[in-house]
Amino acid sequence: MNFIAEIDIMTKKEILDPQGKAVKLGLENLGLPTVEDVRIGKYIVMQITAENESQAREIVETACQKLLANLIMETYQFEIKTM
Amino acid sequence: MNFIAEIDIMTKKEILDPQGKAVKLGLENLGLPTVEDVRIGKYIVMQITAENESQAREIVETACQKLLANLIMETYQFEIKTM
Repeated sequence: MNFIAEIDIMTKKEILDPQGKAVKLGLENLGLPTVEDVRIGKYIVMQITAENESQAREIVETACQKLLANLIMETYQFEIKTM
Repeated sequence: MNFIAEIDIMTKKEILDPQGKAVKLGLENLGLPTVEDVRIGKYIVMQITAENESQAREIVETACQKLLANLIMETYQFEIKTM
């Protein structure tokens, strides 16, 4: 079966995000001063072939922990959908 | 009221994603050959002060269209949650 995994990776709150700060300033200059906190992370979409959803979930867990996320600085969350 | 917006921005399918290809190769080397297509985009979380959800939605739409996404090459989707 084919699955689609949508992964969101974000730096932890304790870690400064200068890119997010720059975007916040940009939004203020655009006339959107009510945006208060901006953080920028990665959004990863992958197609997976697996026998069932729990196997697909395992593959994504391994991918996140070993390659995609830096667990010291980042957290991840994901959703798996059938195609 | 305070809202949290979670925005996912992704390059359109027609556009090559070399970063995603590199990650796919990395996953194969990790022993995950069943991952078939990887695309990498941006995940943006922002805090918004607005009177109601529809106003918050409008602010996020403006932010995406004017600053965050390049509409020629990228698509965006977002969710709004109350804090």
